[in-house]
Amino acid sequence: MMVRLADLDWKTYEARVAGGDAVILLPIGAIEQHGPHMSMNPDVLIPEAISEGVAGLLENGLVAHPISYGYKSQVKSGGGNFFPGTTCIDGKTLIDMIRDVIVAYARHGNRKFVLVNGHYENSMFIVEGIDLALERLRHDGINANVMLLSYWDYVNKDTIGKVFPDGFTGWDVEHGGVLETSLMLHLHPGLVNLDKAVDHEPATFPPYDIFPSDPSWVPASGTLSSARKATVESGKLLFDVCVEGIAESIKGQFS
Amino acid sequence: MMVRLADLDWKTYEARVAGGDAVILLPIGAIEQHGPHMSMNPDVLIPEAISEGVAGLLENGLVAHPISYGYKSQVKSGGGNFFPGTTCIDGKTLIDMIRDVIVAYARHGNRKFVLVNGHYENSMFIVEGIDLALERLRHDGINANVMLLSYWDYVNKDTIGKVFPDGFTGWDVEHGGVLETSLMLHLHPGLVNLDKAVDHEPATFPPYDIFPSDPSWVPASGTLSSARKATVESGKLLFDVCVEGIAESIKGQFS
Amino acid sequence: MMVRLADLDWKTYEARVAGGDAVILLPIGAIEQHGPHMSMNPDVLIPEAISEGVAGLLENGLVAHPISYGYKSQVKSGGGNFFPGTTCIDGKTLIDMIRDVIVAYARHGNRKFVLVNGHYENSMFIVEGIDLALERLRHDGINANVMLLSYWDYVNKDTIGKVFPDGFTGWDVEHGGVLETSLMLHLHPGLVNLDKAVDHEPATFPPYDIFPSDPSWVPASGTLSSARKATVESGKLLFDVCVEGIAESIKGQFS
Amino acid sequence: MMVRLADLDWKTYEARVAGGDAVILLPIGAIEQHGPHMSMNPDVLIPEAISEGVAGLLENGLVAHPISYGYKSQVKSGGGNFFPGTTCIDGKTLIDMIRDVIVAYARHGNRKFVLVNGHYENSMFIVEGIDLALERLRHDGINANVMLLSYWDYVNKDTIGKVFPDGFTGWDVEHGGVLETSLMLHLHPGLVNLDKAVDHEPATFPPYDIFPSDPSWVPASGTLSSARKATVESGKLLFDVCVEGIAESIKGQFS
Amino acid sequence: MMVRLADLDWKTYEARVAGGDAVILLPIGAIEQHGPHMSMNPDVLIPEAISEGVAGLLENGLVAHPISYGYKSQVKSGGGNFFPGTTCIDGKTLIDMIRDVIVAYARHGNRKFVLVNGHYENSMFIVEGIDLALERLRHDGINANVMLLSYWDYVNKDTIGKVFPDGFTGWDVEHGGVLETSLMLHLHPGLVNLDKAVDHEPATFPPYDIFPSDPSWVPASGTLSSARKATVESGKLLFDVCVEGIAESIKGQFS
Amino acid sequence: MMVRLADLDWKTYEARVAGGDAVILLPIGAIEQHGPHMSMNPDVLIPEAISEGVAGLLENGLVAHPISYGYKSQVKSGGGNFFPGTTCIDGKTLIDMIRDVIVAYARHGNRKFVLVNGHYENSMFIVEGIDLALERLRHDGINANVMLLSYWDYVNKDTIGKVFPDGFTGWDVEHGGVLETSLMLHLHPGLVNLDKAVDHEPATFPPYDIFPSDPSWVPASGTLSSARKATVESGKLLFDVCVEGIAESIKGQFS
Repeated sequence: MMVRLADLDWKTYEARVAGGDAVILLPIGAIEQHGPHMSMNPDVLIPEAISEGVAGLLENGLVAHPISYGYKSQVKSGGGNFFPGTTCIDGKTLIDMIRDVIVAYARHGNRKFVLVNGHYENSMFIVEGIDLALERLRHDGINANVMLLSYWDYVNKDTIGKVFPDGFTGWDVEHGGVLETSLMLHLHPGLVNLDKAVDHEPATFPPYDIFPSDPSWVPASGTLSSARKATVESGKLLFDVCVEGIAESIKGQFS
Repeated sequence: MMVRLADLDWKTYEARVAGGDAVILLPIGAIEQHGPHMSMNPDVLIPEAISEGVAGLLENGLVAHPISYGYKSQVKSGGGNFFPGTTCIDGKTLIDMIRDVIVAYARHGNRKFVLVNGHYENSMFIVEGIDLALERLRHDGINANVMLLSYWDYVNKDTIGKVFPDGFTGWDVEHGGVLETSLMLHLHPGLVNLDKAVDHEPATFPPYDIFPSDPSWVPASGTLSSARKATVESGKLLFDVCVEGIAESIKGQFS
Repeated sequence: MMVRLADLDWKTYEARVAGGDAVILLPIGAIEQHGPHMSMNPDVLIPEAISEGVAGLLENGLVAHPISYGYKSQVKSGGGNFFPGTTCIDGKTLIDMIRDVIVAYARHGNRKFVLVNGHYENSMFIVEGIDLALERLRHDGINANVMLLSYWDYVNKDTIGKVFPDGFTGWDVEHGGVLETSLMLHLHPGLVNLDKAVDHEPATFPPYDIFPSDPSWVPASGTLSSARKATVESGKLLFDVCVEGIAESIKGQFS
Repeated sequence: MMVRLADLDWKTYEARVAGGDAVILLPIGAIEQHGPHMSMNPDVLIPEAISEGVAGLLENGLVAHPISYGYKSQVKSGGGNFFPGTTCIDGKTLIDMIRDVIVAYARHGNRKFVLVNGHYENSMFIVEGIDLALERLRHDGINANVMLLSYWDYVNKDTIGKVFPDGFTGWDVEHGGVLETSLMLHLHPGLVNLDKAVDHEPATFPPYDIFPSDPSWVPASGTLSSARKATVESGKLLFDVCVEGIAESIKGQFS
Repeated sequence: MMVRLADLDWKTYEARVAGGDAVILLPIGAIEQHGPHMSMNPDVLIPEAISEGVAGLLENGLVAHPISYGYKSQVKSGGGNFFPGTTCIDGKTLIDMIRDVIVAYARHGNRKFVLVNGHYENSMFIVEGIDLALERLRHDGINANVMLLSYWDYVNKDTIGKVFPDGFTGWDVEHGGVLETSLMLHLHPGLVNLDKAVDHEPATFPPYDIFPSDPSWVPASGTLSSARKATVESGKLLFDVCVEGIAESIKGQFS
Repeated sequence: MMVRLADLDWKTYEARVAGGDAVILLPIGAIEQHGPHMSMNPDVLIPEAISEGVAGLLENGLVAHPISYGYKSQVKSGGGNFFPGTTCIDGKTLIDMIRDVIVAYARHGNRKFVLVNGHYENSMFIVEGIDLALERLRHDGINANVMLLSYWDYVNKDTIGKVFPDGFTGWDVEHGGVLETSLMLHLHPGLVNLDKAVDHEPATFPPYDIFPSDPSWVPASGTLSSARKATVESGKLLFDVCVEGIAESIKGQFS
């Protein structure tokens, strides 16, 4: 069964969402540098692929066209908003975009949403967008339910052990590192060139942030830890654990 | 040379945009019903493909990740914002999105933009987004130049004659009709099923609009004219005339 | 019967709108150069006069005080937003103004609105203002109906033939040309000085727009075609065909 | 010399504002009930007429098209926002409108503005609109100066003594009373019908406000004091004292 | 009984507001210079203290945490927004803050609000915040009632006579003068140093405002009249008359 | 030396901030339930006290009046926005408030800011407020530097070991637990009643969020872990480690 919502014609879509039981998965990402060894769209492509994987495990899952531009990259999580190619939008714009898109899909009769986030900095703006969407819908007499998740929260200890056999340096520095690079190797190998991955120690930061950002805080590569040990096998492991875990959550919550 | 901006790694992108002479093409579309015979993403996919075609003809063209959700479909141009699958955002949200994305790319040093619109209803909100972006940039001492175009304005009389040998019923009713369907047949044949195209007379409308919309004004198919006579050959003709014409305009304006 | 809403005292107005059957006509215009031969308010004065003419043909029509400042003039339709005297507001401001004014009149009990636009660039922002107004009213349990029209869409072929005996160069270049000038000669002859009208070929434009605008694209007069052949007789013809056509539409839609 | 800005053609206007020494007077009003004896537009018409009177006394004064829809009427100053015909806009909308219009006129080269307010409730939103306009202009390197006044602040004790020979009940209750009615009798006698003026004691209010408004606080007429003693002579006195005083202020401030 | 809302634990608060009969008093102030003899927080501290006094006289009054940053100080009422230490926010921000806070307390079940303003310039933005809050709540089916007052409106003639035995120069110039200073001497003597109070004539102003502000209009002290005659006894008198008057109003309105 | 900014008179403040070397500490909190054993203002009071402690260690530190209302409480970090007493504002409102307040203090000549956050959910909205403030200031030619920190990030392992001798259950569940309760016991013992603290296991949550929130996910107490083991000694330890660490960071960054 086709799961990419926008690839359906509207009559087919109408039939799929009738009854309000379809699960609409909305990937939300960012266009942002991920080191010299990888394209700038992993935050879009990974949640999109995971959403499609999840939808395949659901009775009636549909993957909406992703929201692709995300909130401003922060030094400690994405290297910062001063790298060429890191292309970010204002917080209010993201809030409104999330709100409008949920409202629009809900007006088609959908009541079950899963927002699959691929860019850490988006999280709170997505939360606000959901809150405003639910209020707007409520005023029209519509009650919808929205799950929000970041895919990496589904990577369990077991998988971590396999992906990082030499020890895990923590989620904080996973920007452009083994996690994302492995997933991209599995999903879009043509967008990764491991030869260009820079080997460096995981970044360390003081307990505060400074604005305007200080580029000297960030490794020159833009990655917060080295991607050198990324493998396609790790990518598959990570992909599978996320897809299965998320599908499980959705079934538990929405059935 | 690769033209999809977000598929580059940031170091490659940095090199490409150094000097400010790269041309950034930004496709802007919508997710909207286009009849029972076609997917709901032609307004994104067509300008994206055309942008890539154009970029291939430029010395240094880059196609930015598209802005995919567009302004509310209107009855007379897109069938209206009440069809299942037509997924639209508020005008202010689109204005802000356009503004933010231009500002972000300009902060990388880009000064030459071409916005390639694929959804009629977006036009004026894009204009406002550009105006606000240029003001914001100007306040930071940055002067950028932005071309805005809708690809269909590059279809000349000669091509019209070939695509509509029995006479052209006008741009007004081309929603989901021969033009878009032919282009999709050429670009994404898997997303079209001509057998489902409904044959009906071109829609006619009174000289005013009414809100809330009256669905009885619109053909039940959602298309404003029949797509039956769409062909892959017409799609290629249309694609080529747009790509060449746009590339010509850009060279004339930006070199 | 008086038709200018704001000229009524409130008790008279209250009586007129009781029952919700009054038709509220709201003229929407702009302050914008219209060539060296004419004042800068035709986009307000013409729809205001037409609205009053239409109201005179309805059982209970009332013309609201116009919304006078409009969206930014564009090169191809109004010469552009860089002429001295062209005085334009942001898109979001116009959206909000339209929304608020509709909501306010609806709270008096009115349910039938006709928005009469006199400035092309306003159109999509008016659409959005209406959409937001209807949502806001709906949340208060109020359902209103709004017709939106631009008066020039009521000029039929027959009238065109009479007004342009030497051939019509198209709506695109009618800014400050024969159409508006004739109407002003008929309605406000004191605000026109045909001797100052500049004779020039109709403007031609490339198929794209450029921002910031390029003043060299626009005739130095600010008009997009010559007004020399404007006459008071043409003005009366145009006025009558618009008034009668609009009144007809309203009766058809709202009775 | 013509003073109504929008009645000029743009070439004449351009010549008038060259050098930045023209004084742009911008009337700001409201559409609001003013009792059963008077039209609902005095808050627009009075400041407009006063502005034109003032402009006539200046070397180069121009009266801009008024901003006609104002902030929500309050019980103690305008009777409240629940009367039929009282047609008010949101505070943010008024702020933006003021900001945009000042910015637009300043971009024509104007640097001297006088905002003539005719609706008490507008005041603080105008202040904010001015502040935002000056910031926006400053960011473009433009420094403008804006005077803000409410015309009634120019009525001196001497005039009060003549207009209210039996004693003045205070500005607070002058809504639709002797002041505004006299001015309208002088300026627009056709919009006043003194026979319908209701005789009642001046309204008295507790020291607080309550929301939602309590209509029982307001005289049924909508006026806060009786207009019975309004005369055309008082109107002329009031008009003259305002016009002369304001012209004096402008000369003192701007020459 | 404790009256400071935020000092309660939530279970106690829940019990207090059950039934919707609690009166929520919300002090609203500003951080603003008040002369060289006094701290910059009287506009927060005075309404907060008065609210607590009032709450003590009510059956079930609760004082919410104050909204402390207020609208931009104006020359004629607070000396102007150019003094070091005068720390003001945009009008729209204050509107939104008022709206959000009322909505939040109403969602706990509260229906009776008293907004106690301590900064003149806030007034109209508070009005708009209330209006938007009531609309937002209404759309959720909640009807709340909001009283709005400025504490100084409760100072009666008798008290004025005692506080200003040599004659009252008017509310207009009371910024940082005898009224506020006496209240602060009574409430927070440690934040006043009368020795530093500057003796000067009450400020006088022209009948208009000018933007950007002209600092030469304002006494160098920042006060609009001298605080020299402030006393702790006057402070107590003023405090008591406000507290008692406001409590009376609330009982009359809300019981 | 006094450190509470708003307790200074403006002349003293002016002298303190002259030269732009003062460090402005701005506490940012929330009004939110913290269990049945504690008041609802720890998120304001703790960062305010820490800021004052830090300022005491700096050469010229000033603590601005706090921003007290914060972003919507989330289930996993603050129990959720449905508890009576949890009083939250929209994300856009918080963004604007942060922006305006920084801009205002910067216009006094301040260039060094430290934002001390006490409410986890605020973080990203503060980031955006800072970004918008810096842009607005930059457009006026002002360059300021802003440090942002959450005080708990200064609690080191050593302190954790002492405060949680039986093992640390993690920051995630510290809402209303030992950390905040100990700090409040140290700073405001009158606002804590440990007898009412509920003993329960630390909360556990699924890896996703659900909206509208599901109250059954949260312990009935509103705390995410038990506060029973809070002590005044732990409070002092925590306070000291934060104050000293933050002062150290500021000196390192700003001297």
